[in-house]
Amino acid sequence: MKAGVIGASGYTGAELLRILSTHPGIEVSMATARQYAGEKIASLYPSLAGAYDGAFDVFEPEAAADSCDVFFLGLPHGESFKVVKELAALGKPVVDLSADFRLQSPDEYEKWYDTAHGAPDLLSDAVYGIPEIYRDAVASARLTANPGCYPTAALLGLYPLAAAGMLRGPVVVDAKSGVSGAGRSLTLATHYPQIADGMQPYSVAGHRHLPEIRDQLEKLGGEADVVFTPHLAPMNRGILCTTYVRLQGGVDPAGLRELYENAYNGERFVQLLPEGACPQTKAVQGSNDCHVALGFPDGGSTLVVMSAIDNLVKGAAGQAIQNMNLMCGLEETAGLAGPGLFP
Amino acid sequence: MKAGVIGASGYTGAELLRILSTHPGIEVSMATARQYAGEKIASLYPSLAGAYDGAFDVFEPEAAADSCDVFFLGLPHGESFKVVKELAALGKPVVDLSADFRLQSPDEYEKWYDTAHGAPDLLSDAVYGIPEIYRDAVASARLTANPGCYPTAALLGLYPLAAAGMLRGPVVVDAKSGVSGAGRSLTLATHYPQIADGMQPYSVAGHRHLPEIRDQLEKLGGEADVVFTPHLAPMNRGILCTTYVRLQGGVDPAGLRELYENAYNGERFVQLLPEGACPQTKAVQGSNDCHVALGFPDGGSTLVVMSAIDNLVKGAAGQAIQNMNLMCGLEETAGLAGPGLFP
Amino acid sequence: MKAGVIGASGYTGAELLRILSTHPGIEVSMATARQYAGEKIASLYPSLAGAYDGAFDVFEPEAAADSCDVFFLGLPHGESFKVVKELAALGKPVVDLSADFRLQSPDEYEKWYDTAHGAPDLLSDAVYGIPEIYRDAVASARLTANPGCYPTAALLGLYPLAAAGMLRGPVVVDAKSGVSGAGRSLTLATHYPQIADGMQPYSVAGHRHLPEIRDQLEKLGGEADVVFTPHLAPMNRGILCTTYVRLQGGVDPAGLRELYENAYNGERFVQLLPEGACPQTKAVQGSNDCHVALGFPDGGSTLVVMSAIDNLVKGAAGQAIQNMNLMCGLEETAGLAGPGLFP
Amino acid sequence: MKAGVIGASGYTGAELLRILSTHPGIEVSMATARQYAGEKIASLYPSLAGAYDGAFDVFEPEAAADSCDVFFLGLPHGESFKVVKELAALGKPVVDLSADFRLQSPDEYEKWYDTAHGAPDLLSDAVYGIPEIYRDAVASARLTANPGCYPTAALLGLYPLAAAGMLRGPVVVDAKSGVSGAGRSLTLATHYPQIADGMQPYSVAGHRHLPEIRDQLEKLGGEADVVFTPHLAPMNRGILCTTYVRLQGGVDPAGLRELYENAYNGERFVQLLPEGACPQTKAVQGSNDCHVALGFPDGGSTLVVMSAIDNLVKGAAGQAIQNMNLMCGLEETAGLAGPGLFP
Repeated sequence: MKAGVIGASGYTGAELLRILSTHPGIEVSMATARQYAGEKIASLYPSLAGAYDGAFDVFEPEAAADSCDVFFLGLPHGESFKVVKELAALGKPVVDLSADFRLQSPDEYEKWYDTAHGAPDLLSDAVYGIPEIYRDAVASARLTANPGCYPTAALLGLYPLAAAGMLRGPVVVDAKSGVSGAGRSLTLATHYPQIADGMQPYSVAGHRHLPEIRDQLEKLGGEADVVFTPHLAPMNRGILCTTYVRLQGGVDPAGLRELYENAYNGERFVQLLPEGACPQTKAVQGSNDCHVALGFPDGGSTLVVMSAIDNLVKGAAGQAIQNMNLMCGLEETAGLAGPGLFP
Repeated sequence: MKAGVIGASGYTGAELLRILSTHPGIEVSMATARQYAGEKIASLYPSLAGAYDGAFDVFEPEAAADSCDVFFLGLPHGESFKVVKELAALGKPVVDLSADFRLQSPDEYEKWYDTAHGAPDLLSDAVYGIPEIYRDAVASARLTANPGCYPTAALLGLYPLAAAGMLRGPVVVDAKSGVSGAGRSLTLATHYPQIADGMQPYSVAGHRHLPEIRDQLEKLGGEADVVFTPHLAPMNRGILCTTYVRLQGGVDPAGLRELYENAYNGERFVQLLPEGACPQTKAVQGSNDCHVALGFPDGGSTLVVMSAIDNLVKGAAGQAIQNMNLMCGLEETAGLAGPGLFP
Repeated sequence: MKAGVIGASGYTGAELLRILSTHPGIEVSMATARQYAGEKIASLYPSLAGAYDGAFDVFEPEAAADSCDVFFLGLPHGESFKVVKELAALGKPVVDLSADFRLQSPDEYEKWYDTAHGAPDLLSDAVYGIPEIYRDAVASARLTANPGCYPTAALLGLYPLAAAGMLRGPVVVDAKSGVSGAGRSLTLATHYPQIADGMQPYSVAGHRHLPEIRDQLEKLGGEADVVFTPHLAPMNRGILCTTYVRLQGGVDPAGLRELYENAYNGERFVQLLPEGACPQTKAVQGSNDCHVALGFPDGGSTLVVMSAIDNLVKGAAGQAIQNMNLMCGLEETAGLAGPGLFP
Repeated sequence: MKAGVIGASGYTGAELLRILSTHPGIEVSMATARQYAGEKIASLYPSLAGAYDGAFDVFEPEAAADSCDVFFLGLPHGESFKVVKELAALGKPVVDLSADFRLQSPDEYEKWYDTAHGAPDLLSDAVYGIPEIYRDAVASARLTANPGCYPTAALLGLYPLAAAGMLRGPVVVDAKSGVSGAGRSLTLATHYPQIADGMQPYSVAGHRHLPEIRDQLEKLGGEADVVFTPHLAPMNRGILCTTYVRLQGGVDPAGLRELYENAYNGERFVQLLPEGACPQTKAVQGSNDCHVALGFPDGGSTLVVMSAIDNLVKGAAGQAIQNMNLMCGLEETAGLAGPGLFP
């Protein structure tokens, strides 16, 4: 099949190109980036020199319709819904990696993204694309809203509890992200000397991924009061969520472990670590894996759920390809089997 | 005055030597390290080449008594109380940087440090050395238990709440530490390729600094149920505590800010950041400062307290010198006025 | 085909396991590590959790003979030649990743590795495994000496000059390596706080990879006087060689560029960067690529050749698999097509 | 004395403020930054929160004349000579940290900095400010051209050879710099994900610090053919120069060591490391020290000189203050005695 990557010059787009270059069932027929149109892909990303000879294109709906069987959208929020509208008519699978179809309510969208949603009628068509939670819905979707990186890590950590109706009180998600999560745009906050060899929280009052996490937990049956604090860690890739859940009725380590084992039994991309182990972001670097572990602090009623992903893979491009595989009837793991790059 | 640094070859010892080398009232007359006796200080720490010509000594109580007016102990726990016993008779000020005199109960000590406390009668003499909390007691102490790095950051974040009787429910301390906190001993967990460019939690079930935090909060009037999770971050120095406090009766931003302003008004080494700012460990790198900020997550009953220190300075050697200054009647800030090294 | 990885617990061994796990023509039938025998591969390397269920074995020549068609040896120098001797009788392809068969003279070996060579009669059978230089010899070899990481980067940078007889004077190879090149063994020099956020040269008087570089340049017709200085850079992976070559008769940019284009035309794993571009180690991270660029300093007679590889891939495991592909009649690029992981 | 820092918002300016805040003889009476006028110094640099309460000013020559006894200029090249002209009339000491007065020829300046020099008549008044080389001239200067960071490290490494007339052939300076050397302006090349965990050369064809190095070596009596290649290393601070010198008549380790010992005997800020040791940038982090070591590669005629500094201290602000101390008759080491921050 032929894939088009619309908005291919950011880190997420480049990661799509990287993974797709060895995907057995996909050929990239188009990679667009208005700002870099005509420029060689390999000149922006020398890492792709061995895989792509061509240049970035400009997106033209008609040309796209002709040359692509499936679309990945790596556009900024507020831009993406415009292109989704143009593509919707084609009836071809679309995976949108922006935030535009993640929240169910256009009002919530406007509140958090400071712009009115331009395609509210398509919101109900969009399936929230975490295959481990919504596999069947993804498989039959035409439009997948690829989740945010933080929500992917947080939700894979909380899903078994939410599905079991065990999320009833305060939940604290303390998340640490690598800097690639902030994208390729230049800001003081991502200027090397400002952040290397140091750590800091940000957006404590409210980050855009908070309503996304809340939305999904609610849908899954949780009634949690979620606090979410993102941190910038001095690393390229990786998200680590350390999530604190107050459990009513106390903590039962064996029962909780069984709950998680059952939830993720047979999942290729979620590994429950052995008892006592803690996930490390490096172990999933470059892979579509999510490592999950449970911690039981001394004598308390708090469960600690730890989950780690690569923000650009399971948190973006890898999960997008996993979704596309399902939508297109390909093997779900196609192109995604590579282990993490460690060290 | 003449200071002896007993156990000077670890990172904490070297940091004492670094800061003391420009202290206006102190001359280092002795730096001991059994393993490196006779070896040049500057050969282990080339950074000290311009400041120290001499070699590490072997500790001899009598020689120490003759040549030192005050002692810093940078020994491992379980070793330190032996030397404290030897020094106690001299009546000279001792700042112990080990864990040996931090917990009030010898049983708790034995439980967490796997060794019986060999000087339990001295425990009640030891003052827990956070000057911002216990200034007067420190000033009149002969033996100061210099706090752990994590407890220093956590307690400076929580002290105003605890003192105001506002710590009544669950408290989550999510702490991120630089790798120097793990010391100079070689372990796989501190081997560069294992941890660079990645993050991970550890000791989730219970870290030795947890009972220290609990002990102090209790003394301050808190009745908190504390969960504490340390993380290893890919940086040399720095501790960042992101602390989540459920407040009964809701969160009053203005009132809380005032509480913290009053608590730290006039403190040279605690800076309350402007509203909306978040602390970053880099800003306190190499300095004795603690940066504190308050966060108010969207519509909840949780207060987020963020506190950042340099684990080797305010979290160890700097605070030890601050304590020593008080114990010896020197200016509290002597030798400690340098700002953080940024970037 | 079935491959055995003998000495699989080091970083090189783990990298072989990583790449082989998605190799279309190879199944890993045995991974041995005496020290970790019986321990799960994924417990040492959680990154391999999705790919390997099994445990490390102990190496037994007979069992190995039965279950493997080809062997990779990731053993320390001085250990490797013993196993090579045992395997030689089997007549199956062996790729030795140690230094034991890289130097042609047993005396040189003893001088640099402080141990007598125990299998000098096999030295002449061993082919030095850089396919871009010795493709035919590798294809017909039974024993390949997989090159050192530094020599791979240096030689791919110098090969076109050497082959053209243009290496006649002083050559300076200033090399910068990531810390994974020092392996998994604990040393103060690889202890995170000692090296993170800093740089340093080492082994200035003479590094073991120097005779290997000299040996090969001589074989290729060079008469160079090589100075080689390795540096430890604060990064996980990557080698960058900045090589300074005094050219007799001056520097001809266009001619030199053409020389390199011809030398690497059609090579999948060597990319000559566009004029003016400089290689960066990140662009080849995790890939088998070598990026090469030429620099022409203002008005001089010195050519600067820059070459970058991932020390664990093209500098070790990837090149070993490339060699094995050739030795076994598989597609040379099989399993090795993935682009670098950037950022 | 009262010092004015003109152009105080960049990393060099902030470093001046950091060091001056504990200088015993200097009070900062003015810190200007047009872009941030009126903004709190501590809001840009929270690390300075404990040291500076005030805000950035706008530079006004008359106000400056009234409130300052000495000036530091942290302006961009091309801006600085304008202010120097305004200040020259005052007759007060000026240390210019820009490149504007480093080259002796206005033509060379225009060639490398793409702008005509607007104050060529002042060029001959400017003393090139490396006190270890030009101490007396600095002490009697009214205008000091503070050297570039790379030239400082390179020249301190080469000075004894040049002064001894031993620089007669090719010299290769392979330099590695931390990212703070590129300043606070946002560029893709200093965007964290582009460079963290990787290395790369740049400006191979000719960097602006090359003519500065050449100029000085010539003045010192060298007739060297210098090649200079800067590299960006993934670290905040530090410059490491690995310099390769072909010596006519061969290499005499003992004699060379003696030459360097004599050259730097008694210098507080240059430490010749013990035989066999290599400098590491971390050991000089935050200090005004330069560590120098000599390496003698196996059997050759090349001497390797290694020199390490902190680019923001000895490579900029620290050396500027050292120059100012001399110009103002203060103790040369005043405010600069602190050892490096290690680890």
